Amino acid sequence: MRGQSKELKGDAPCHIGVDLLGSDTPPAELLEAILSFSQEKLDSSVHLTLLGTPSVFAGISSRPGVIFHTVENAITMEDAPLTAIRSKRNSSLCTGIALLKNGHLDAFISAGNTGALIACAKIELPEIPNVERPALLTLLPTKKNEIAVLDVGANTSYKASHLVQFAAMGVAYQKSRGVKVPKVGLLNIGAEAKKGTPELQEAYDLLLALSQAKDSPFFFAGNIEGRDVFHGEIDVLVTDGFTGNVFLKTAEGLAAVVIEELSQHGIAAEMRKRLDYAEYPGAVLCGIDGIVMKCHGTANPKSLTQSIIVASRLVHHHFLSEVKNELLYFDGKRS
Amino acid sequence: MRGQSKELKGDAPCHIGVDLLGSDTPPAELLEAILSFSQEKLDSSVHLTLLGTPSVFAGISSRPGVIFHTVENAITMEDAPLTAIRSKRNSSLCTGIALLKNGHLDAFISAGNTGALIACAKIELPEIPNVERPALLTLLPTKKNEIAVLDVGANTSYKASHLVQFAAMGVAYQKSRGVKVPKVGLLNIGAEAKKGTPELQEAYDLLLALSQAKDSPFFFAGNIEGRDVFHGEIDVLVTDGFTGNVFLKTAEGLAAVVIEELSQHGIAAEMRKRLDYAEYPGAVLCGIDGIVMKCHGTANPKSLTQSIIVASRLVHHHFLSEVKNELLYFDGKRS
Repeated sequence: MRGQSKELKGDAPCHIGVDLLGSDTPPAELLEAILSFSQEKLDSSVHLTLLGTPSVFAGISSRPGVIFHTVENAITMEDAPLTAIRSKRNSSLCTGIALLKNGHLDAFISAGNTGALIACAKIELPEIPNVERPALLTLLPTKKNEIAVLDVGANTSYKASHLVQFAAMGVAYQKSRGVKVPKVGLLNIGAEAKKGTPELQEAYDLLLALSQAKDSPFFFAGNIEGRDVFHGEIDVLVTDGFTGNVFLKTAEGLAAVVIEELSQHGIAAEMRKRLDYAEYPGAVLCGIDGIVMKCHGTANPKSLTQSIIVASRLVHHHFLSEVKNELLYFDGKRS
Repeated sequence: MRGQSKELKGDAPCHIGVDLLGSDTPPAELLEAILSFSQEKLDSSVHLTLLGTPSVFAGISSRPGVIFHTVENAITMEDAPLTAIRSKRNSSLCTGIALLKNGHLDAFISAGNTGALIACAKIELPEIPNVERPALLTLLPTKKNEIAVLDVGANTSYKASHLVQFAAMGVAYQKSRGVKVPKVGLLNIGAEAKKGTPELQEAYDLLLALSQAKDSPFFFAGNIEGRDVFHGEIDVLVTDGFTGNVFLKTAEGLAAVVIEELSQHGIAAEMRKRLDYAEYPGAVLCGIDGIVMKCHGTANPKSLTQSIIVASRLVHHHFLSEVKNELLYFDGKRS
């Protein structure tokens, strides 16, 4: 992921919106990090629209390629999502989604209230055909490559068809990263086809059949146990939102403890960098017709700037078209 | 856990059976490790019965306090559990459970076929009243204390009452380790009471009500997210078998990758020791009237010797009586 901003050179202009409000990091700190990042590392084809209250931008001078878009207020972590998106129409979060909807933005990134962001995106943006349920996709560092894990979005029930659609969206995502034939695994409690819930068993059979077609855009690696994920032998890890959420937070929690200990021993900045989820780009909300990314509320500014790189790459690689295309295949309709 | 063998001194004799067959480690290697461990570290009150085929014991001289119990064969990892426990009655696994059933053993430890061990134990040993479903309990290292996590045994469905019974058994386990009022948490995707599945929400309410009684034997810490588990603020983590299995294997897998990297950097033996799940004692099968422990098939001999210490402690601390007692409270029948 890192260091790939070069590939953006020569691309058509794209417009990325970034919500400066509603996270655990002070807006001024995010603003400073993003401005310095945009000046030093961002290709000129990427135009930024930063959303904040007037006070956030007070005393800040204008920059080429950066629009300061003032809004009224922020949706906080404590706000009830559905109430907030109705009562705070001029918040940074709702404004960002509105700008995406009317085409002023190509992608929108927020580290604010997750429930509000997903609800607002689902309500305001068009659905993608053949997706029953949007999913949050996040990149996970492993020994080898980075795996796309979805859904990590905490739905508490699921059907086999949801899992198959998650696979399609994960494949599209990895293709946008340059993986030609992504390897897809199902997160399960054993490798055998008959392991896990009836829904998992059905998804296994469906994915196996899809992957065996001559023109299959992916390879099905079967069931993957939690302990094998980190070997990095697959590109896409498919799971329901509850299990995926537990999986991701477990990995994050253990990594954080390890990093803390390593720091006490004054050890291994390189390893720390690889394990530090706080510096990883945010999750992509897949399955709605718009590129929306969600960073951790506790994420540091680096996570937001990494997300800008990911978002611009998704725009340049026509991620949404790729998703629609894959879904047609997974739905059996692609020629 | 480690270094607690001293507490066994002066205790009544107990008899621990250890299955040398059916794991990924050669029986001779396990035998050698256990014999050297028993000579150097084990209190004389702990008597061992080692189960293996005649060839395993060929040329081994007798030791005080150790019985070499020859059996016909082994149940392998590839055997179908129910078929195997019927057709291989004289295997080390079935023999160990039979010895436990007829009182020749106080506890039995195996690193063999998990499904066969659980099935054989459930069929042969009496049930414990008020337990609808046995659970596998394992200890998890964290920043502070070691947490009892259950169920990690891969049931794929669950009811709220199962989770409450898991809590009771986890409380009994931590009391046997000297924790006076264990803190219980529910593994969930958010801290709020209304997070997660309907079953989790119901279990939350039940555990909260139980913990608020004047004579409650435990403290209810509410919902715990995967990332917060490793802070070690709780003593018992309650979860369903599917989620628990994914949780545990994720932690193991990430820890293994970290250990591998640390080794390459020549780093931190102490940290390695703390993170190395391969050296941790096996899981305890809770909810049947007998002490049965299951080590990883890939566990190293250290895990087996650690399990001997845990098993003897559970015997000396009357773990089964404690479990029955806690279950009465959690079932609302204790005076």
